[in-house]
Amino acid sequence: MDYAKESLRLHKEWKGKIEVVATVPVENKDDLSLAYTPGVAQPCLEIQKDVEKSYELTRRHNLCLVVTDGSAVLGLGDIGPEAGMPVMEGKCVLFKAFGDVDAFPLCIKSHDVDEIVNTIYLISGSFAGVNLEDISAPRCFEIERKLKEKCDIPIFHDDQHGTAIITLAGLTNALRLVGKKKEDVRVVVNGAGAAAISITRLLLTAGVKNITLCDRKGAIYEGRTEGMNPVKEEMAKVTNLEKKSGSLADMLVGADVFIGVSAPGMVTPDMVKTMNKDAVIFACANPTPEIFPDDAKAGGARVVATGRSDFPNQINNVLAFPGIFRGAFDVRAKDINDEMKLAAAKALADLITDEELSEDYIIPKAFDKRVGKAVAKAVADAARETGVARL
Amino acid sequence: MDYAKESLRLHKEWKGKIEVVATVPVENKDDLSLAYTPGVAQPCLEIQKDVEKSYELTRRHNLCLVVTDGSAVLGLGDIGPEAGMPVMEGKCVLFKAFGDVDAFPLCIKSHDVDEIVNTIYLISGSFAGVNLEDISAPRCFEIERKLKEKCDIPIFHDDQHGTAIITLAGLTNALRLVGKKKEDVRVVVNGAGAAAISITRLLLTAGVKNITLCDRKGAIYEGRTEGMNPVKEEMAKVTNLEKKSGSLADMLVGADVFIGVSAPGMVTPDMVKTMNKDAVIFACANPTPEIFPDDAKAGGARVVATGRSDFPNQINNVLAFPGIFRGAFDVRAKDINDEMKLAAAKALADLITDEELSEDYIIPKAFDKRVGKAVAKAVADAARETGVARL
Repeated sequence: MDYAKESLRLHKEWKGKIEVVATVPVENKDDLSLAYTPGVAQPCLEIQKDVEKSYELTRRHNLCLVVTDGSAVLGLGDIGPEAGMPVMEGKCVLFKAFGDVDAFPLCIKSHDVDEIVNTIYLISGSFAGVNLEDISAPRCFEIERKLKEKCDIPIFHDDQHGTAIITLAGLTNALRLVGKKKEDVRVVVNGAGAAAISITRLLLTAGVKNITLCDRKGAIYEGRTEGMNPVKEEMAKVTNLEKKSGSLADMLVGADVFIGVSAPGMVTPDMVKTMNKDAVIFACANPTPEIFPDDAKAGGARVVATGRSDFPNQINNVLAFPGIFRGAFDVRAKDINDEMKLAAAKALADLITDEELSEDYIIPKAFDKRVGKAVAKAVADAARETGVARL
Repeated sequence: MDYAKESLRLHKEWKGKIEVVATVPVENKDDLSLAYTPGVAQPCLEIQKDVEKSYELTRRHNLCLVVTDGSAVLGLGDIGPEAGMPVMEGKCVLFKAFGDVDAFPLCIKSHDVDEIVNTIYLISGSFAGVNLEDISAPRCFEIERKLKEKCDIPIFHDDQHGTAIITLAGLTNALRLVGKKKEDVRVVVNGAGAAAISITRLLLTAGVKNITLCDRKGAIYEGRTEGMNPVKEEMAKVTNLEKKSGSLADMLVGADVFIGVSAPGMVTPDMVKTMNKDAVIFACANPTPEIFPDDAKAGGARVVATGRSDFPNQINNVLAFPGIFRGAFDVRAKDINDEMKLAAAKALADLITDEELSEDYIIPKAFDKRVGKAVAKAVADAARETGVARL
């Protein structure tokens, strides 16, 4: 199928993929007096007395804001706020279908960090959580950090954390399969955008010790001067502890794991050949991966994952965000913290039994009905254990 | 029925009166590839080329933002943003039920005019129109004016214009019944809040010549020094041209029409007795009117309207806003201008035939199925005639 052409045709026909509906009747005077004036004054007064009641008396408890500035939409780059909306609506559809979360899409006509932060903060009283989407790095890091400081609801940049959670789940199972420990493996992450940084951070939090981050200029190390920024500086302190310099190819020699969230064709079979035995390759550039699975296998890789649905082991964010928000909302969490992210990754990995685990099945499939509930439960439990749950 | 108690009970049970639903399927890989990546890139690119396409390829064409700062909610005053949300959700329910408009409720945590304006402007690319709600005067005037300057979508403060449109419709029919001309009648408007100012402006636009506006200190006239503000100063130039001073009671002597959007019990039967023959009384303070219908009739009034559903002639905003936005959205209007408001009032008034017209039936009833369509058509036609329609 020509997805581009067919999708455009369908979008013209659909004229929108979401709808706001009323869930209460207004068929007569009494209905009107209860859902609206004069009766509605009473729930208003209850919330005035205690703002927490807004979760009980309005839809807030289930509402997630899906918001972008249109600066990094899919692989299309900065296409503008309105042009990002078909993706935002699509995301809302997935939230509903996979997590029963009411998600509402908004685009913001600004690229200014503080203006975006302030806009989202000012409307946050209508929502139980915020999913940041398709905002370019490094602004996305600062926007998320500032919002987490200001807001008392979960702020989650899916392009970072969703991808990181699925990657950790997949890596956990890949290492289970090949019999290596996460403390021992040498991991090379290629790309220095939002996803790569977040993957690196979460793998470190999960106990992976030896990670080297590469960008277009090769390995990032403490003391490198060219092409650095504050986030890379920060990462240089906690990765590549031997401060090696060199190209991506240099870094892959003897590595156990390659994780690419970069660009098509960055890795060749010859490069894979220099990696350690039972190499694990996550080639997540979309739609064209850093290396295609057949080529990676030809180079000696044992497990290969991509971002595509037409190969085994798809790193698909839909495995994480609906369940994560479902779990966070179920316990009215104030935050989505690292423990909740780690719990989500573990829940995903644990869905595959030792018997089922294979080179072609390290990650649950997108339409596996167990996924949303398992992730939600793990996230809700972790929220309670770490004191960020309000229920 | 004890509406307050029953409404609170129902709000606890409902846990929200709106829901965001998906209108497209995501049951398999192809669905996902069409509603989301990779297919969704194509509609995004179309919108990037031409932002107007956002009306065709997303839900924008039917989406109205219902937004408050919680500063003037019902008669409750400044109860805070979150506490206003039961009213906002109720409004969204009415938008859907009476106009098939997808309305989404937001509250803004700020009382600063420019911050509110900027917040709404920055998210306006996701909507086809904005309904301002329950924002206190005089800030509401400035917020609306500034938003109209910045945005290319309709901005409509329902507390002002909705009320004004229904009042004009009702007054048109009341005068038709008593056989007076709007050019000749002397009108006294009591209250100097958002609704009173907007009613006065629309009546002037509609051709009423002689209006006196009163506030707690009595008649507003050019040169009055006490209790004035920029909006009252502006109104003083176009009303009360004889510059009379005095109390509300003084002003009512010889008046043909009283319109109250003020406070309970401001008018007595004795005051009505001093009015002209066939006096028309719109006592819209809610829930307790300026004078009850029986008392007004005892004082000699011929036609009485209130804001209540348990008396005849209810001035109910639901008669206007759903059809107004429906009409504006149907032609993708850039604005809701005076001509569209006048057209809406005329459409409402015209729904009642000469045969049907009576002291107890000057305004269509809230559940009259013809209302929404009649208003929408009149508004759409007026938008086309005045060049603000994009379709």
